[in-house]
Amino acid sequence: MAKRGVIIVAGGAGRRMGATLPKQFMMLGNEPILARSINRIHEALPAAEIVVVLPREHVELWRNIAARFEVAEHKIALGGQERFHSVRNGLQALSQDVEYVGIHDGVRPLASKKLIIRLMLEAEQHPAVIPVVAPPDSYRVVEGEHSHIIDRSTLRIVQTPQVFQAATLLKAYEQPFSAAFTDDASVVEMAGEKITLVEGERENIKITTPADMIIAEAIIKAQDEE
Amino acid sequence: MAKRGVIIVAGGAGRRMGATLPKQFMMLGNEPILARSINRIHEALPAAEIVVVLPREHVELWRNIAARFEVAEHKIALGGQERFHSVRNGLQALSQDVEYVGIHDGVRPLASKKLIIRLMLEAEQHPAVIPVVAPPDSYRVVEGEHSHIIDRSTLRIVQTPQVFQAATLLKAYEQPFSAAFTDDASVVEMAGEKITLVEGERENIKITTPADMIIAEAIIKAQDEE
Repeated sequence: MAKRGVIIVAGGAGRRMGATLPKQFMMLGNEPILARSINRIHEALPAAEIVVVLPREHVELWRNIAARFEVAEHKIALGGQERFHSVRNGLQALSQDVEYVGIHDGVRPLASKKLIIRLMLEAEQHPAVIPVVAPPDSYRVVEGEHSHIIDRSTLRIVQTPQVFQAATLLKAYEQPFSAAFTDDASVVEMAGEKITLVEGERENIKITTPADMIIAEAIIKAQDEE
Repeated sequence: MAKRGVIIVAGGAGRRMGATLPKQFMMLGNEPILARSINRIHEALPAAEIVVVLPREHVELWRNIAARFEVAEHKIALGGQERFHSVRNGLQALSQDVEYVGIHDGVRPLASKKLIIRLMLEAEQHPAVIPVVAPPDSYRVVEGEHSHIIDRSTLRIVQTPQVFQAATLLKAYEQPFSAAFTDDASVVEMAGEKITLVEGERENIKITTPADMIIAEAIIKAQDEE
């Protein structure tokens, strides 16, 4: 069976961290968000290697939190200055014989097992596979004092996990850092690879605000009732 | 005091309606979604005239539903072929002395009173005011077989209510219909007016999928607990 790895990015060098506890350590239902993200990946892919990338100053905190919950086995790698550097550190922590690599947000604990597996299988046919959903709202693009409407029918919300063939990903992460790397797929794209879009899930939200916590609690409750 | 009106758009001519009950008639907590949207506007602006735009085939259904709940006073106008036509019909149903007009989605029952009032007050200074929020996710633009990343820092999710000075709005809706009218603000913009962006609310979601219903129930529960 193909060997798979998943890098879960849970913060960089800490530049943007305030005094408050980062979202990934907060409780969602009966588990910290990051524990949920790790366990969901493990449930979907029991044989996958999991690497969690954490800012250096959060490693001890995470170890203390993780010791008090059931968290699937994972290695820890240190966060870098930008997400690009964090992912690169995570890649270095994976075994060399991994063939497919998922990169996932630590604050995205609601991706379904089905979605995670589907992305991994698609990556056997395509070098770079990312989940996207069509947005329900209208959008505008802001330019200084002005803004203009953008055709939402062409717009897609990009989620994680983003799954890549390992050779493609390793090659892409040999590039020097660029400010144009806005997500993992963009790094691979800058290296010349085509990105394959796969239908994601509305429920697979990124938890970044208190409102998102409320929304996530509700989704978990509904998922548990299924 | 300035006279205000709000048009709540709850469906056009019914082109996209399936066999299932449209979302605006579904129960959210103890009230139909559309009743919540109407009542929230009324709570924020007790003196405002409210016009609800409905497809002809849903008028009787709505009257039957509304009779069984506490719903603030409102007129009914008939939906047109496109949203543009629906809003135009709504405008014709408003009193001629209305000075400020809000246009709101019938399936957006979670806008706070504070937001609704703030938008109305901003419209006293600016002819066209719309609530927007910065998106937390990355986005791609799809073009045929390909897609490319878009700078999310310039992107804003557009919500409703969108509030306009009545003279501006009436003039804009004298234009012939164009497929470029993707929302109410775009109609006004095509008529040459500048659109003013105001910070919206993450919780002010548009309910379009079963997942959104779950999310909305959670937000309502949290708002009720406040």
